[in-house]
Amino acid sequence: MRVFMFEKPLGMRDTLPDVYQIKRALREAMMKEIETWGYSFIETPTLEYDETVGSASAILDQQLFKLLDREGHTLVLRPDMTAPIARLAASKLYKEGCPLRLAYAANVFRAQQREGGRPAEFEQVGVEYIGDGTTYADAEVISLMIFALQRAGLRHFTVTIGHIGYVDALFFDILRHEQRVETLRRFLYEKNYVGYREHVKSLPLSSIDRDRLLRLLTLRGGEEVVAEAKVFAMTEEEHRALDELKQLCEHVKQYGVADTVKLDMSLVSHMSYYTGVLFEVYAENVGFLLGNGGRYDELLAKFHRPSPATGFSVRLDRLMEALGEKQQQGKTTCIMFSQERFAEAYAKAKEMRQRGEKVVLQQVAGVRDMDQFTAAFDDVVYVLGKHGKDERSC
Amino acid sequence: MRVFMFEKPLGMRDTLPDVYQIKRALREAMMKEIETWGYSFIETPTLEYDETVGSASAILDQQLFKLLDREGHTLVLRPDMTAPIARLAASKLYKEGCPLRLAYAANVFRAQQREGGRPAEFEQVGVEYIGDGTTYADAEVISLMIFALQRAGLRHFTVTIGHIGYVDALFFDILRHEQRVETLRRFLYEKNYVGYREHVKSLPLSSIDRDRLLRLLTLRGGEEVVAEAKVFAMTEEEHRALDELKQLCEHVKQYGVADTVKLDMSLVSHMSYYTGVLFEVYAENVGFLLGNGGRYDELLAKFHRPSPATGFSVRLDRLMEALGEKQQQGKTTCIMFSQERFAEAYAKAKEMRQRGEKVVLQQVAGVRDMDQFTAAFDDVVYVLGKHGKDERSC
Repeated sequence: MRVFMFEKPLGMRDTLPDVYQIKRALREAMMKEIETWGYSFIETPTLEYDETVGSASAILDQQLFKLLDREGHTLVLRPDMTAPIARLAASKLYKEGCPLRLAYAANVFRAQQREGGRPAEFEQVGVEYIGDGTTYADAEVISLMIFALQRAGLRHFTVTIGHIGYVDALFFDILRHEQRVETLRRFLYEKNYVGYREHVKSLPLSSIDRDRLLRLLTLRGGEEVVAEAKVFAMTEEEHRALDELKQLCEHVKQYGVADTVKLDMSLVSHMSYYTGVLFEVYAENVGFLLGNGGRYDELLAKFHRPSPATGFSVRLDRLMEALGEKQQQGKTTCIMFSQERFAEAYAKAKEMRQRGEKVVLQQVAGVRDMDQFTAAFDDVVYVLGKHGKDERSC
Repeated sequence: MRVFMFEKPLGMRDTLPDVYQIKRALREAMMKEIETWGYSFIETPTLEYDETVGSASAILDQQLFKLLDREGHTLVLRPDMTAPIARLAASKLYKEGCPLRLAYAANVFRAQQREGGRPAEFEQVGVEYIGDGTTYADAEVISLMIFALQRAGLRHFTVTIGHIGYVDALFFDILRHEQRVETLRRFLYEKNYVGYREHVKSLPLSSIDRDRLLRLLTLRGGEEVVAEAKVFAMTEEEHRALDELKQLCEHVKQYGVADTVKLDMSLVSHMSYYTGVLFEVYAENVGFLLGNGGRYDELLAKFHRPSPATGFSVRLDRLMEALGEKQQQGKTTCIMFSQERFAEAYAKAKEMRQRGEKVVLQQVAGVRDMDQFTAAFDDVVYVLGKHGKDERSC
């Protein structure tokens, strides 16, 4: 037998009791908020057909866990929940013209190429709001994400909002060619702004067009950004996107979350299915992405049910890191008994458990290392020996 | 694009909102009971090395979902939680001589050979109690399973208890040969008692031995069964197993669950890692297996940490079936607004949500089929038009 016996596959993790409790409390808090907004939670299978869901997801093929079933079809471990929910909504739940609000708390899978501490399986909590193309739907999803994070205890975080329709319109108007657009987009979603600037300067463009591309990086801040961008917008698509953002800013103010939100016209996502408003949420103390979302008005059409849709997803592991791992473990009492006094010990345990307290009832003969075992409890009660009195140690 | 697009792999299921809620409530109820008994919940990865966990599990190889990782190692989707928890306990959590109580609520995977309505992924709730070889540990696990099921609302069910050490001792004493023992064992775990009888009668045995084998099927009932079996027990192993069952019956009485329990000396499991007391739980109205468990004192040794252990697992899908799918959906209100009156509508929604009510806030422009959409709610409030009054329809 080899050391290998005790290992886990690359990127796979165990969740030990303390972390499990924290994670569960955060999940529950987010779920409660999401439920009061009238979203219905659902579950989809861990395995899906690659042809159905794998190819509809926005995750790179090399990050998919794949296997073959007995008929030779390729299965994937779901890399996100948006595509499975689109499949489900299209086939069963969504009725034309009736907006549908669904939610999930589920593990997703991303194969890791090498050891680098990145998890290959992690939990996302999120929603999908299908069938409503109004900016109220975008505002609802963004505001709900903010409320859910606040309910989970997160205080200092920022939601950055952009519009992929705006960026694409600007880029195509100037560059005219998908491949050149893709190159520029990549600089943005890698947040390599130095590289973006250098690349733009290297392109054979008019000074006006170069300015338009460079100014994109400065269009960040409050709702005033929309007006700034309007001045230089030249296409109908840019104007339409900016009008949507203007409306969105209004709604977000009405939801009372404007302080948590800022605009960034250069925001681009690695999720290729976004078509309009998109957003990312960052915790201020840790600086990493907690979650993201956006409008994906073309995904449902892949399942023969064209329909506007938007949603968000938050990573529970990162939320936990952002909050710091506060100890939340409730007190646990151990009642240690010897055979003759079991009935007495059990009566005591039962009474405490009925009050909701956590009680381990332990036959003393089952414990060899008494000191180490009892060290794990907040309180130990000994119900031992024929004529002993209970002894309590705290 | 083909119809295939909307399909799910064989045995894979979606869980729609109503069933999700019921499942969640049952899981929560069981978890609450398990926590008050001092068990700590943990999570393990969905994917494990086949060599580590796949081969240690008691699930048939053909039922495992397997895939290859980039280094050419075989991975499996966990077919049960006992082997992963043994891996985890052995490598990190278990300290020699200190009993360890762990619990889980997790999906497990069993590849299906053909369409037959059997799920390839289902959720188990269960516990593993590691490091305590006393009969109190067996009694605790059985009693906890009973209390957890009761807490989930199940009333009429029976836990059947047997002892694989007893059956094996009897079979080996008479048949002397693993293969012949295995043949008889298979009749029992398939609950093919007619086949068992015929097979026993076909064997070239003394009339005493034949009687011992046939009598096994009659050893069912209350604790008196132990005394009946004692009369005919001929090996030390049989006596030891029966003494354990006698003690177990005592403890189970003290836990106040004796009415729910009966003995069946012919009980044999398809789980090959059991070594002692084992049990199954059946719901009376539906007659199918809800869960099972038992002692597996040799599994931890596979992870270089020999240690006694016992546990149970309950299938949530079957528990749900046994209980019947009671509608538990809370009331949801829809507030339908038009643009000018959003602030007013949101104020109303916010207030209701703060009271914990479920409220969908819907821009009227996002709905095309108003009749169908509103039919799904218990209550709809219209906050529409510039000078309109709220109109409520129930």
